[in-house]
Amino acid sequence: MNVITPVGQPAPADGAPSVTTGPLPSSRKVYVQGTLHPEVAVAMREIDLSGNEPSLRVYDPSGPYTDPNVKTDIRTGLNPLRHKWIVGRGDVEQIGGRPTKPEDNGLKQGEASVVPMFDRAGRKPLRAKPGKNVSQLAYARAGIITQEMEYVAIRENLGRAKAAGFLRDGESFGAAIPDYVTPEFVRDEIARGRAIIPANINHPEAEPMIIGRNFLVKINANIGNSAVTSSVAEEVDKLVWSTRWGADTVMDLSTGCNIHTIREWIIRNSAVPIGTVPIYQALEKVNGKAEDLTWEIFRDTLIEQAEQGVDYFTIHAGVLLRYVPLTAKRVTGIVSRGGSIMAKWCLSHHKENFLYTHFEDICEIMKAYDVSFSLGDGLRPGSNADANDAAQLGELETLGELTQIAWKHDVQTMIEGPGHVPMHKIKENMDLQLKVCGEAPFYTLGPLVTDIAPGYDHITSGIGAAMIGWFGTAMLCYVTPKEHLGLPDRDDVKVGVVTYKLAAHAADLAKGHPAARLRDDAISKARFEFRWRDQFNIGLDPETAEKFHDQTLPAEGAKIAHFCSMCGPKFCSMKISQEVRDFAEKGMAEMSDTFREKGGAIYSDVATGKPIEAAAE
Amino acid sequence: MNVITPVGQPAPADGAPSVTTGPLPSSRKVYVQGTLHPEVAVAMREIDLSGNEPSLRVYDPSGPYTDPNVKTDIRTGLNPLRHKWIVGRGDVEQIGGRPTKPEDNGLKQGEASVVPMFDRAGRKPLRAKPGKNVSQLAYARAGIITQEMEYVAIRENLGRAKAAGFLRDGESFGAAIPDYVTPEFVRDEIARGRAIIPANINHPEAEPMIIGRNFLVKINANIGNSAVTSSVAEEVDKLVWSTRWGADTVMDLSTGCNIHTIREWIIRNSAVPIGTVPIYQALEKVNGKAEDLTWEIFRDTLIEQAEQGVDYFTIHAGVLLRYVPLTAKRVTGIVSRGGSIMAKWCLSHHKENFLYTHFEDICEIMKAYDVSFSLGDGLRPGSNADANDAAQLGELETLGELTQIAWKHDVQTMIEGPGHVPMHKIKENMDLQLKVCGEAPFYTLGPLVTDIAPGYDHITSGIGAAMIGWFGTAMLCYVTPKEHLGLPDRDDVKVGVVTYKLAAHAADLAKGHPAARLRDDAISKARFEFRWRDQFNIGLDPETAEKFHDQTLPAEGAKIAHFCSMCGPKFCSMKISQEVRDFAEKGMAEMSDTFREKGGAIYSDVATGKPIEAAAE
Repeated sequence: MNVITPVGQPAPADGAPSVTTGPLPSSRKVYVQGTLHPEVAVAMREIDLSGNEPSLRVYDPSGPYTDPNVKTDIRTGLNPLRHKWIVGRGDVEQIGGRPTKPEDNGLKQGEASVVPMFDRAGRKPLRAKPGKNVSQLAYARAGIITQEMEYVAIRENLGRAKAAGFLRDGESFGAAIPDYVTPEFVRDEIARGRAIIPANINHPEAEPMIIGRNFLVKINANIGNSAVTSSVAEEVDKLVWSTRWGADTVMDLSTGCNIHTIREWIIRNSAVPIGTVPIYQALEKVNGKAEDLTWEIFRDTLIEQAEQGVDYFTIHAGVLLRYVPLTAKRVTGIVSRGGSIMAKWCLSHHKENFLYTHFEDICEIMKAYDVSFSLGDGLRPGSNADANDAAQLGELETLGELTQIAWKHDVQTMIEGPGHVPMHKIKENMDLQLKVCGEAPFYTLGPLVTDIAPGYDHITSGIGAAMIGWFGTAMLCYVTPKEHLGLPDRDDVKVGVVTYKLAAHAADLAKGHPAARLRDDAISKARFEFRWRDQFNIGLDPETAEKFHDQTLPAEGAKIAHFCSMCGPKFCSMKISQEVRDFAEKGMAEMSDTFREKGGAIYSDVATGKPIEAAAE
Repeated sequence: MNVITPVGQPAPADGAPSVTTGPLPSSRKVYVQGTLHPEVAVAMREIDLSGNEPSLRVYDPSGPYTDPNVKTDIRTGLNPLRHKWIVGRGDVEQIGGRPTKPEDNGLKQGEASVVPMFDRAGRKPLRAKPGKNVSQLAYARAGIITQEMEYVAIRENLGRAKAAGFLRDGESFGAAIPDYVTPEFVRDEIARGRAIIPANINHPEAEPMIIGRNFLVKINANIGNSAVTSSVAEEVDKLVWSTRWGADTVMDLSTGCNIHTIREWIIRNSAVPIGTVPIYQALEKVNGKAEDLTWEIFRDTLIEQAEQGVDYFTIHAGVLLRYVPLTAKRVTGIVSRGGSIMAKWCLSHHKENFLYTHFEDICEIMKAYDVSFSLGDGLRPGSNADANDAAQLGELETLGELTQIAWKHDVQTMIEGPGHVPMHKIKENMDLQLKVCGEAPFYTLGPLVTDIAPGYDHITSGIGAAMIGWFGTAMLCYVTPKEHLGLPDRDDVKVGVVTYKLAAHAADLAKGHPAARLRDDAISKARFEFRWRDQFNIGLDPETAEKFHDQTLPAEGAKIAHFCSMCGPKFCSMKISQEVRDFAEKGMAEMSDTFREKGGAIYSDVATGKPIEAAAE
């Protein structure tokens, strides 16, 4: 039988702000060692099943928080597992770093922060030595397989030793998903620009992960305080919580005060890459007046965040002056915050977007830290009415042009996509992005396939996300039930993450990922065999599954009963079809007599095989 | 300004079991009169908006319960609006009717029911006169446009006077959705078998609705007690509750005791068609022993239910003996209850399914009451592993054969579909069904696009439902969050219904339904113009939207503020893009000077135009 591990235990109350730690039910953390790089130890989750079923290995972005053998304390941050790899390459140097300024936190000169500072304990930022490019893309093009590349290769295979025995079944629309991911395949995909490993040299705490069409579909969760609400402890908790349920990257979209400090807490405690939209902080530094933004303020903000360790920057460099008037007749205008800020700047000065005119300068900064581009879709549609219009598609063309410039600088690049798009216009987005952006990874928000369900936009967008993931999107940015209405709380974050995990997995299945169906088959088999606990534990959210089951049949005995509350004991189709299976195996004719004799026992005890009574009323 | 109507008020406590009545927020019930049949008055919901926006008319299956001018009492049932139409045709007769037997309610001879009987007040069942066929299909083929046909024509148009001015935009995969639905179009679609109006002559309380690929996509909600839990009052409440949120039909899947009486309560109080799976009740009559089922018991059950007024029967006549062994190697065998019952019967007797051998006898019964077939997919896949296998597709071929027989008898017919299907195998289901079943309407359960998310199967299935609805499925059977785990409660029913409404609507949009986008555009415009209450009220679930909004910004003032909690006042992209619109309209160059002057006022009071302070912290 399984040992049921307590779920969601807060850390011991020794004064540290608590986050949720401990393994998921019946799960163990396992580490798979590298061969090219024996210092690489790839974390995975192994779910132990009952009976004689083999345990099931699943992808696990939850970091050390779910490993009971690791003691975590958010005041000191996570172990910097990549630090040795990074300095070992000999192409980085420690620098004094940009001093933190009061305006980084929205404070006036001399004003004290109300938010506790994270103690960096003297850690200094790293930067590429002069003339060096430390991006994974630069290494890949130089033929170097880094530790990060081997890490993600092992991770994507979920520890499978070889490509053995999977029947490929799917429609990948021209993707090139291999039977088995080798480190060389990873290097080659990165070199071609078809995948990225967001891995700032100043975020050594992150476990490497890859974003690309030929790998498992990933999901991003957004967190961040706003001027209206939220606090540091809450945001770090949301970070850990969102990765617990499966977020592969997290974007910190904080605005308002203290965003430098909050970001420090988040990065130091994050086992997944962190993305930001630097223009939000730059805008704070000019007191919210878009027209007062300058290249110099923005540049300084990029360096500030690169030195902290942000892994990818959303940069709205495709919002060109000439596209802005194309949004005037839209039903919902510009709905991207970054897009509207840049549009306002462009109009106010009647000049071209400085993110566009300084794009090569931005590349120079990014490659010194290996920050990846997430080229922002500032003109994405905010309603079905505006989907695939001239403004959106014009910007996409420009993002394609910028991708080529980023690649010239060996800067890793992905492209952001919509938004609100009805189902029949989704594939056009994907096909066009692949074409004009040279197969750089696509990273989409939803898309929402209808506008009429506020409160349920995790679902309207989950539909679009599953579809565009199938068509080739590499990472899906989650949407929570609070979208359009308010800030997500902890429960919303979980629902958003699980919804997007299932959408991403549905995409993997439909693309024909060689191992994706293993988990589906394991849970289906458990379901058919009435292994209730296994069914809960293999699922994306064991807690909710068990809670729902127990609302109707709370008795512990019901979890070994050969029926469930939907049909009751007499009607269980699964039980009947197990009898059907016996028939078919033993020959139908000879069974029809004996069948009547044993017809009474519809369910039986797992252990003894004896008929049992219904375990609950 | 809007008058906010209280939502979900229980009926006055005069002793009657209460159900939720009263209009949805800011909504009025309107009735549109027929022209061919002036006695027809089609119920719709009109949502009043603020400012000078025209009110928005939406499809409304909630029945008289949301009309404050109608007093409802579930002890007497709804007004039998179709009674005059039915008897007016002169082809039906009142009959004594089959007397209720103790075994209809799972009782022993002489045993008293614990459930209160519904008082029929002497109402007798109707049946076609000898030699007459009273199905809508028979009328349609005879060139008769019934009241029901005109009703659904008006209903589908949502009261639009003409096809004026909609730009058609969509991909319908060969459907023939007209710009405007005429009664003659309805008649023709029914005559071709491409649509059905489930409308038992003994369920005159139901408001006619149509199920077909060239009409709005419909959704079904399942209710029903099981042997394990549930009661009468709870089931009637779930019926009313599910139609309040948009269920177009309801299936009563009760098993166990008292199912005759519960069904009577449900039908008499239902404004939507009711479907059942008669084999469930037949099985109760033989104490749950599938092998003891006989044609005579089943036949008697059909008559019992047809006389009560069930509008469509799920009949698993396609589960043929030769298909059963094809399920033996499946991961999840047979997961349809009806399918497994018939498989067990077939194997036990080693005979062909009596529903198949007596299919023409069944047609004779159906046409005397205008009960529609919902040909059950007893061999549907219960896991992604089993999707589109030989058992499933073999049965579908047989359902195609049976459709032709049903049509020979002028019996309205739709076909049930899967189940669990990965995204890349969904379209094959739809295409094959259209081909082998002669375009008879498809009625699918989900399909679930992955098996790994118990607790979230309204979403895994909502994804598949939106897609198959787009491809041509006419009605989507909902799945609740409790699927695979337990019986849905009231909240689950609502979440399931709203999820399927949004999926069906997304399908209508993608198919290019001429008027579907009106609601999306109205809510998007409200969103852009910060008409918060309008945004809530146009949405599928105003209560949840408002509740979510208020969790972050509870102040009443926040509902007129020109920002929301996600971005806060400084960052609102919608506000900025309204400024962008002003720019574009007035000329960009001349605006760039004046812009700076008024740059401070990011949000303003709707009424006065003056800058206002943030309404909440």
